[in-house]
Order: sequence, then structure tokens, then C-alpha cells
Amino acid sequence: MKKVRLGIAGLGHVGCGLISLIERQAELRLPGRVEIVGVSARSRHRARVVDVDKYTWFDDAATLAEHADVDVFVELMGGSDGPAKFAVETALKAGKPVVTANKALIAIHGQMLEALAQENGVDLMFEAAVAGGVPIVRVLRDSLTGVSVQRVSGILNGTCNYLTTEMLRSGQDYDEVLEAAQRLGYAEADPTLDVSGMDAAHKIAILSSIAFTADLDFDKVSVSGVENIQLPDLVLADRLGLRIKLIAEGILTDAGVVCRVATKALPVDHALARINGAENTIRVEADTLGAVTLTGPGAGAGPTASAVMGDISKLFTPTARSAFGRAEHHLVRHFEAAQLDERSAFFLRIKLSDKSGALAGLTEALAAHGVSVDKLVQDSADEAGASPVAIVTHTCSWRDMNQASDRVSGLASVIDEMRVIPIDPVAN
Amino acid sequence: MKKVRLGIAGLGHVGCGLISLIERQAELRLPGRVEIVGVSARSRHRARVVDVDKYTWFDDAATLAEHADVDVFVELMGGSDGPAKFAVETALKAGKPVVTANKALIAIHGQMLEALAQENGVDLMFEAAVAGGVPIVRVLRDSLTGVSVQRVSGILNGTCNYLTTEMLRSGQDYDEVLEAAQRLGYAEADPTLDVSGMDAAHKIAILSSIAFTADLDFDKVSVSGVENIQLPDLVLADRLGLRIKLIAEGILTDAGVVCRVATKALPVDHALARINGAENTIRVEADTLGAVTLTGPGAGAGPTASAVMGDISKLFTPTARSAFGRAEHHLVRHFEAAQLDERSAFFLRIKLSDKSGALAGLTEALAAHGVSVDKLVQDSADEAGASPVAIVTHTCSWRDMNQASDRVSGLASVIDEMRVIPIDPVAN
Repeated sequence: MKKVRLGIAGLGHVGCGLISLIERQAELRLPGRVEIVGVSARSRHRARVVDVDKYTWFDDAATLAEHADVDVFVELMGGSDGPAKFAVETALKAGKPVVTANKALIAIHGQMLEALAQENGVDLMFEAAVAGGVPIVRVLRDSLTGVSVQRVSGILNGTCNYLTTEMLRSGQDYDEVLEAAQRLGYAEADPTLDVSGMDAAHKIAILSSIAFTADLDFDKVSVSGVENIQLPDLVLADRLGLRIKLIAEGILTDAGVVCRVATKALPVDHALARINGAENTIRVEADTLGAVTLTGPGAGAGPTASAVMGDISKLFTPTARSAFGRAEHHLVRHFEAAQLDERSAFFLRIKLSDKSGALAGLTEALAAHGVSVDKLVQDSADEAGASPVAIVTHTCSWRDMNQASDRVSGLASVIDEMRVIPIDPVAN
Repeated sequence: MKKVRLGIAGLGHVGCGLISLIERQAELRLPGRVEIVGVSARSRHRARVVDVDKYTWFDDAATLAEHADVDVFVELMGGSDGPAKFAVETALKAGKPVVTANKALIAIHGQMLEALAQENGVDLMFEAAVAGGVPIVRVLRDSLTGVSVQRVSGILNGTCNYLTTEMLRSGQDYDEVLEAAQRLGYAEADPTLDVSGMDAAHKIAILSSIAFTADLDFDKVSVSGVENIQLPDLVLADRLGLRIKLIAEGILTDAGVVCRVATKALPVDHALARINGAENTIRVEADTLGAVTLTGPGAGAGPTASAVMGDISKLFTPTARSAFGRAEHHLVRHFEAAQLDERSAFFLRIKLSDKSGALAGLTEALAAHGVSVDKLVQDSADEAGASPVAIVTHTCSWRDMNQASDRVSGLASVIDEMRVIPIDPVAN
């Protein structure tokens, strides 16, 4: 099919994020067109960031799930049992593929639902259920098939990671930081599912089942959270070069797959110790491979909806094999040589002759082309009378920088050519 | 097909790595069985880490490529033109899917080869051509289809990153560090392709073409390398809070896709600034998503061969849809509760009453169960006479730690329960 018609159940943040993504699908790289047959949610007239009135409303998710016009059922309702489970079962039994972001449902009933999907010859997909926008499910399932995984570990709950990061940063105790996080929207009004470690446990159970071809048995996962972490734990650990974080891990042992969520202390130079705030990160260790780490936004409407779209895009029948993932209807762009109107700050290194006025002459030459100095270090001159100067400029265009560089080359006090290196802005 | 029969051309590090992976394929998560029909390389009798004599030898790669028994042709010869290109063309024309690790071939002839693959209705796959074991090609092509990518940037050449990292660390100049790197095998005898930035340019051109649905035009890529970096650049930048690294980037601009490889200065808290040594990392920035970063081994026989296997595994006809990526022949493992014979170091926090001998009593109680102290900090007592103590232990079993913890709880000088947090060993 070159067109996929969706039934979407659940219109919270992620559901609305998906609808707004569908409404501007021309900008995406989907293999075909996505249409919405109908939507369903608990409450029809809640305030939402998208106008859902233009889509056909279904009071009952299961009725939508088995509707004749629906090619794919998208479940964004949440909850491991109840209406979400019933609607997903109904869709699968009706021969409709299901895309879900529901980690509790998959962690607890995933294998039963997989069997049901196989019986009915359809796909069950849940990239969005683990780590939001980080595509770890497909990486483990489809890409890392040529390795033997030993361990999957990571930071899988942004709320917990924000809390421990922020406690140490601010010097405030757990209750204070949690309250602030709730005010800022970083923690739910009822944060139990997050802070107890249960949310991370759902995710690591799913990942472990894929990575180790293990039967998913959620009762065997040991779960603890961050509720009992106290500020002195973090402060004293810091003095011993350690960061305490909530770590989810699945390990292959001789006895079987051990899966747990618990606080661990990580040396500050540990790859996972550097992950601060609400980011998620997953590290896959495997022999012959070493370790591959994926990091990104683990929650949020945009990232999670993007992951749902990634799954939906796999449900189009491939009409042509494209090595570069391009479909006929895609806007094909062209490569262009770098433009000089790009702007950035620059790192400059100059050798100046040790004469009075040399530095003033340099900064004037830069200023003549609109290049101004943000930071500067100058060392004392070497035996040859050359004095090393390094500068961080304010932002300017590459064109201005080129012209300034030409002018600087002409100065009598400048030894060797000036070194010009663009600075990339901070990115976490 | 439940069986895939390979013709493998090129028996260098990666080719031999692939053969040894195939020889122990039962440990992997392949959807079926892989067989080797024949092998080909420039020299038959070179010393190799695997015994290739047991496989049928072909003097000519193209003859192997079109052999009737070959289902998939694997090209690991290298070089953008010449025999590699001819053999790949021959395979595609004969209706055989091709898996290659050849970045120069794909960067320069990728779209011509894609057209040839499409004409013949077969797949052309090149996960291993970019960033070795890091599965960025499939992530960009298949997972991140629900986002609009703005920028792809990264550290795509381990040799260059090792050189700049090591110059700053050791305080040695470029030539010295390069020579040492060549001795250690981190740089090739002829390092030109790496240090000129050309290798990274091949990779970023491929990634940009996928990410932006852009026609691959390698002539438009601007390329510079690390050959001219001098130690004072790195040292002075460091004093201004910057790390200089070779950065490959593709950016979507109004004029088109700008693709370049050049040294850039990154603030020390920039995500890419932390990548040291020979690792590769790729950061994908997209609206609605934010940024997702993948990090891992960018080269080496094991990681690259694993990536080749990942591609091969996609060429099996799916016989059953499995949400968890499990095939019938896979060893199915089970989840197991955590075992107490696991071993690690521990972070301990104790409140001790401020009496003489309290600390000695504590360390004796630990030692009685084989738990010994590696590092310890003790603060002066608070008004209530409680003195905070934090300990990093040497490695011991969790069972010993549990017993030691019980004994410590019984000590009269211990206030509150001892906090016990396992330490994860350093991982980069």
C-alpha cells in the first residue's frame, strides 16, 4: 500500500503530537501518505493543542480498532490492562497491525500479544514504548543481529535522572527538588510510576527480551527507585568521584537473564555518568562489537510521536528498494558548496611580534570587518620575540571573517598565517 | 529464504572478521542460516587469522559475484573504482543483492549503483560503510523517517580524533603522535585518506544523502583534515575552554545541503567534545525530535563485520513477524532473579556515633565478611554527635556485602541503616 489509514486511540500529549506530525507529513520522509480514519479518547471535549473535531470520533477504541477502513491501529491510551489491552487484542484479531507506545502493556502482555499478532499474520510495533525518540528497539531487533549481546544498561527514566542530577546541582533534598520538578512539568502530579523505578523496569524488560531472545517475565525483574535517595548520598559519593543514578540493566548470566532497576554509583568518567537531566541513554555491550551507546530525548510529545511515525512508516509495502531510503514523491534536494553567509564564533591563533601596539593593530584589523573579541589570552614572547595570542570572537559571518583574516595577514606585526577555526555552539 | 549463501570478495581484516563471525553464527540472532559459497581476494596465500582454504576460491571477484549459487554478494575489497566497482555492478546485473563496507564506492558511485539495484529489483546495503559498528545508516533510513532532519554532525574518523586527543593529552606535536599511532596500529602506514579528512567526507556525504533525501554529489563536499593542526592550537584552545576536533557535518540550508569536513572548536561541555580516542559519534538534530546521538566503535574487524552481518540478516525472507525479533531456531533464554554471587565494588554511607573506636568497629565488621575498604571519607560530627562516613569498598560478592551489612546494623555505634549502592566499573 502507498497509503496507510490510521485509527488513533488516545489523544493525550503523544496522540496530539502524532496528529500534528501527520498534518505536516510532507516535510517528513515517509514512504507514502498517512490518513486518519478516526480518533478515540476518554473525553471528547478536553482542550487539546490540535483540533480533533475534524476527524471522525469513536467513543469506543475497540470499535475503531476493528473498523473496516483502518489499516493500522495506533494505541496511545496507556495502562497495562483494561481498554488499551482490549483494543489492541481486537485490532490484532481483526488482522490489523498495531503500533503502540504503551510500555506497561508490552512489558506485561507483550509475548501474548506477539503470539496473537503472529496468528493473524500482522505486525505489532512498539519503538515509542522505550526511550521515546531514541530508536533503540529497532537497533536491537534489526541492526545488532550480528552480535552476541552481553549486557544492556541505561538511564531509562528522565524524571529520576533529573531528580538526582538536580539534587546534587542545587544542594536541595529529594522532596524539595521533586516539588520543583512537578511545578516545572518534569515530574507527574503522581510521580509514583517514575520514582519507584517501575517505568524504567517496563522498558528494560522489553529491551532485555529482544537483546537476549529471552521470554519476557516481568515478575522476575527486581525494581527499586530513587524515593529513598538522600542528599548526603549524592554529596559524599561526589567527593569519592562517583555519581549516583538510577540504572536499568539486563545482563546475560549463566543462570539466565538478570534484569533490574536500582541506584548505582558510577565513576565520574563513566559514559553514563555524564548523562544529565531528562535525557535517556542506552548502552549495548556485545562481544566482537564492544559498546554502542544511543542518547536522546526519552519522553515528550514530539520525540515519542516521531517514534510512532517511524513504526508506521515500516507498514507501507515497499514499492521500490531504495538504498538511500528515498521514495518517488520525496523532495529531492541537492548538495551545495558551503556558503559564506553562515555565521559562527571563531577561535583564532596568531603569532605577534613583541612590539608595542601589535595587539591593538590586530584587534583594529578584526574590528574593521565587524569581528569583535569575546575572550583573549596572550602569552609572553618566546626567545624569537614571537608572542602567541588566542582569541574567541563574537558571532560574525564567515565572509567577514575571511576579509578580516586577509587584512590581518597584511599586518607587519603578524608572524605566520592566522589560524581560523569556527566554533560549534554548545550542544548537550 | 531461510538460508542465505554468500560470495565474499576481500579477505582483509573485515573479510576475515566476517568469516569468523559466520563460523560461530549459532551465538548470533540471525533469522536463518548463512553459508559461504566462495571467497575471493587479491592474494590467496597471505597469512590470515582464519583458514580460508576450506572455502572455494575464486581468482576473480566478478566471477564469484555472478555465480549461480550465490544469493548475496559481499564486497569488502575497497577502492571507489576498479575491481570492487566492477564486481558490485556484475552482482547487481545478475540480480544478486549486494552488501558492502566500501564508503568510497558508495560516496562516489552510490546513486548509480542504487539505480542499477532498482532496475534489477535487488537490495544494495552499506551499513558497514559508515562508522563501523554504529548502526547509523539504518537508524537514519528506517527509524528516523518521522522527523525532519536539520543537521547531521559527528566525529567520523577515529584516527583523526585519536591524533588530536592524544596531542593535547601528551603535549606532543602532530608528527610525533602520528608516528606513535602508526606503531600502535591506530593509524595506517599511509594515513593520507584518514588525516586529509577524505574518509570522513565519504561517510558524511552518504549520511547527508539519506538524511536530507539529497542527490549525492561528492564534488560539492568541502574537505580538510588535521595535517596542519599544531600543538599550540590545541593548548591555547584548551585554555579558552575549547576542544579542537575534526567534525563532519551536513546541514540543511535554504540553498541546499551543505556538507563539509573541517576542524572545529567545541566548548568542553559540548556533547561531541567528550568523545576521545578512536570512537565515532553521530548526532542527528531534527525538529520535533531534538537530538539523538549514537556512539561506538567506528572501525575494527569485529564491529565492521557485525554491521555487515546486520545487513545480511535483512536479506532473509521474513517467515513470521516477530515483534521481539526472535526466530524459531533461536535459543530462548529465561529471566532470572538477581543472583547474590555477582561481584562489584560498593559505595557505603554510614552515620557513626562520635565515640572512640566506632570507625574501627565498622571496618572490622566489614572485614569479618571479606569486605575491605578502598577509599574512605569521614566528616566531623554534627551537633547530635553523628559523624557521616562514606566508603568505597574493594570488589566483593553481593552475598558477602549483604552479610556484612547485617553485621554493621547490629553495631551500637551505627545510627540509621547503612546505605549500600553497587558501583558500576568505568565504561567509556
